[in-house]
Amino acid sequence: MNKLILVTNDDSIHSKGIRELVEVAKLFGEVVVVAPDKPQSGMGHAITISEPLRLYPFVGFSNVEAYSCSGTPVDCVKLAVFEVLKRKPDLLLSGINHGENSSTNVLYSGTMSAAIEGAMEGIPSIGFSLADFDADADFHGTKEIAKKIIPSILNNGLSKNTSLNVNVPKLSNEDIKGIKVCTQAHAYWEDKFDSRKDQFGRPYYWLTGEFSDMDQRKDTDLFYLKQGYATVVPTHFDLTNYAAINDLKYLNHEGEF
Amino acid sequence: MNKLILVTNDDSIHSKGIRELVEVAKLFGEVVVVAPDKPQSGMGHAITISEPLRLYPFVGFSNVEAYSCSGTPVDCVKLAVFEVLKRKPDLLLSGINHGENSSTNVLYSGTMSAAIEGAMEGIPSIGFSLADFDADADFHGTKEIAKKIIPSILNNGLSKNTSLNVNVPKLSNEDIKGIKVCTQAHAYWEDKFDSRKDQFGRPYYWLTGEFSDMDQRKDTDLFYLKQGYATVVPTHFDLTNYAAINDLKYLNHEGEF
Repeated sequence: MNKLILVTNDDSIHSKGIRELVEVAKLFGEVVVVAPDKPQSGMGHAITISEPLRLYPFVGFSNVEAYSCSGTPVDCVKLAVFEVLKRKPDLLLSGINHGENSSTNVLYSGTMSAAIEGAMEGIPSIGFSLADFDADADFHGTKEIAKKIIPSILNNGLSKNTSLNVNVPKLSNEDIKGIKVCTQAHAYWEDKFDSRKDQFGRPYYWLTGEFSDMDQRKDTDLFYLKQGYATVVPTHFDLTNYAAINDLKYLNHEGEF
Repeated sequence: MNKLILVTNDDSIHSKGIRELVEVAKLFGEVVVVAPDKPQSGMGHAITISEPLRLYPFVGFSNVEAYSCSGTPVDCVKLAVFEVLKRKPDLLLSGINHGENSSTNVLYSGTMSAAIEGAMEGIPSIGFSLADFDADADFHGTKEIAKKIIPSILNNGLSKNTSLNVNVPKLSNEDIKGIKVCTQAHAYWEDKFDSRKDQFGRPYYWLTGEFSDMDQRKDTDLFYLKQGYATVVPTHFDLTNYAAINDLKYLNHEGEF
């Protein structure tokens, strides 16, 4: 039976990255696209609860059923599964993101939040990101990597509750050294704000900052990306720090306060 | 030296829950509030990157420096640390949320995303949520629990990269059975959309759905909340599924594509 593949992203349905991912996905099954009607970068796992969502047919892909959605990437996944497809697809692909989503950036990323939402719904899900913010970025290398990973996951599935976070360095096909399955690095944004006054003299603040890799381990996504590898981090949504439970036992309390 | 405590939330600076939390926080140190100027429930770990943020002094708390912010809960934490305080506070408190943030809801929660952002910045951070959506909910029990947990964490600190997700059942003080340190349950939203036509005949979709606890374990937050305990889940932001890395080794690849 033909596989059903749902494609979404966070850069919007109008971005080059999703067009390139749809091209690859078509090689492996029937593709349906539900993606945001405007950029949703940095939306994390946000959902829209206080207002209704719009969903309109989108005709920009050749021979692919597609819908643009007024919501976040996670909204797109929920609407796709429960309103458009009315069933779980065999695979969810998110991206290709214009920009890296390695290390702790996975928490801010709309691309990966869509994939994590897919995993929460029991769908094998993969997020693809290229370390290049250019609107006309060269996705050739990322597409080759997607062509290698997608059929493997369609055949083998994924561990329960787990999605894949795939990041690709900004290198030509020939210069990408390979693929490494690895761990999420612990990096940190030293946030700064560009603070100015508007035309009425009132202050405004615009997020900026510097990224610093504090992780000394040699098996992280940032470590391998720097060496020229594409990275694959198996990503789940159990945020429990199991090791800390024992240390915190002293907070246990029985009876009244 | 007096402790510096940052308070934020996702229900907005105008909610009863943050007022009650500020009252408790004042018992333990100098309090500064930076909180959203409007409700931000369900915003997850979203940040504002494509537009500037506003931050205005807010005079609604007695003897407490406070600011309302136009951004998300995570924006509030970043602005508080890097623009308002210009240093890391000794403790970050988020809430008290009007509504439960147990189990996988931690991913959608603005309350807990603020606490997780605090942990990313190396600040001991605690999110408090009460299982009652009422705007005038009774926070007495939650305040007693906060009074017990806050001084412990100020004294003992928290494991690296770890925040606490505290949830309190909707019960009177005397009926709360105690406090249990436990794990995040694996629950699931069986999403549905309320689909209608607007006055122009165009469809719109509004998220709804039913929550189902699929977790059979006897040490989860949902398990203990149902028994009448307040729950404390140590929550970190390393989403790597370490156990899956070995299973996925077959994706490793050296050389060209």
